[in-house]
Amino acid sequence: MRIVRFGRGTWGTLDGDEIRVTRGPGGGTTGRTFRLGEVRLLPPARPTKIVCVGRNYREHIREMGHPDEAPAEPGLFLKAPNALAAPGETIPYPPFTHSLHYEGELAVVIGRRMKAVPEREALDYVLGYTCALDLTARDRQKTDLQWVRAKSADGFLPLGPWVETDLDPRALSIRTHVNGELRQHGQTADMIFPVPHLLAYTSAFMTLVPGDVVLTGTPSGVGELHRGDTVEVAVEGIGSLAVRIA
Amino acid sequence: MRIVRFGRGTWGTLDGDEIRVTRGPGGGTTGRTFRLGEVRLLPPARPTKIVCVGRNYREHIREMGHPDEAPAEPGLFLKAPNALAAPGETIPYPPFTHSLHYEGELAVVIGRRMKAVPEREALDYVLGYTCALDLTARDRQKTDLQWVRAKSADGFLPLGPWVETDLDPRALSIRTHVNGELRQHGQTADMIFPVPHLLAYTSAFMTLVPGDVVLTGTPSGVGELHRGDTVEVAVEGIGSLAVRIA
Repeated sequence: MRIVRFGRGTWGTLDGDEIRVTRGPGGGTTGRTFRLGEVRLLPPARPTKIVCVGRNYREHIREMGHPDEAPAEPGLFLKAPNALAAPGETIPYPPFTHSLHYEGELAVVIGRRMKAVPEREALDYVLGYTCALDLTARDRQKTDLQWVRAKSADGFLPLGPWVETDLDPRALSIRTHVNGELRQHGQTADMIFPVPHLLAYTSAFMTLVPGDVVLTGTPSGVGELHRGDTVEVAVEGIGSLAVRIA
Repeated sequence: MRIVRFGRGTWGTLDGDEIRVTRGPGGGTTGRTFRLGEVRLLPPARPTKIVCVGRNYREHIREMGHPDEAPAEPGLFLKAPNALAAPGETIPYPPFTHSLHYEGELAVVIGRRMKAVPEREALDYVLGYTCALDLTARDRQKTDLQWVRAKSADGFLPLGPWVETDLDPRALSIRTHVNGELRQHGQTADMIFPVPHLLAYTSAFMTLVPGDVVLTGTPSGVGELHRGDTVEVAVEGIGSLAVRIA
């Protein structure tokens, strides 16, 4: 099932080109329908928090110049909900950075309250998966005390286009294109900490609630964006999310 | 005016010992009343994000062993809403740390949507002020990639007891007691970046919305907590917030 959110916050399920309006994400239908082409999609989750993992693909750790060894535990950071942006949105290039980077990622949307859940049960708490663009001010990541401006400025988390509920997150390809050119091409099978591990680790000390989003890290190939660029993140089995930098 | 939240999420205003139930924070009264002693208070805000500043008092920068110079800009970090705890709550000592520290602070609660607001107008966007205990796993702050476990574990942000709307934040004393013994005694007049500066700086890149919370930094005197300790944060003109570590 594909869960969409659109317009002023209406939820629906997508079947081919048809949206059936639902009461809440994945809830009962109201009978109203829309065509996908006639609505403006919104980020398909309303998180109270967005938990991200910094170094989850070996090749990306290398390209960032960090020691060539897998971390012992997931290195988490947060993005704040003001960062959310919709599929197709235009994101202004922020004045405080000279090094805005794209990071394409698989995002997990939580479906049930999740506190200290073991790894083997973790996927039972997932609503589904979507595409995320973790925009990053690479220069501010180095100069600031913590990664707040670097990761949580307005518009720094395009998310969508919808939540796919029927998906196995263990072997999906992730592709990021900039202006149509392939820049990142990773496999979720290469995650150092796979999705169940990330969820179990996080839920051990932070209760996750429905709608919360967990970003699973970016593969190698990150790089600079410039004004006028179009970025597209595509995850196998989900679809693709595109935004423009203004 | 003092704004309280209690029970299962009811809002009210406090006058002496009497709570008058309101529609939303600071909204119209419903006619129902309670006695303060008969309700269980909740954190008096429902933030979409909690923005904090790491080094805002010179004496605290010194005691943490950092270079003895004021930072050029506020050093922000985030706490996630799962960290919120209520006045009087018992917080379990978490298993992942051996160095749980108290940090007493003045907290600002936002009243109006705030985006790129200049310093001179910033206080017009404030609903009011309350007391915060920024619990910190000092060891994890050093070992982890970012301050997520160190700052955002469940229960790591006791907040309350109420929001005081009629208060000038510029010259208030902040006192933290552990088991009745005075440990921190600071003055908001000593902030390196006063409240209007923090709000203007943050709102330049993160839109703040009603209910969002901004923590203004801790004065010197931070230190270890142990199982069984009672911590109390008192801010002049507001009141005091006490919790117990289990």
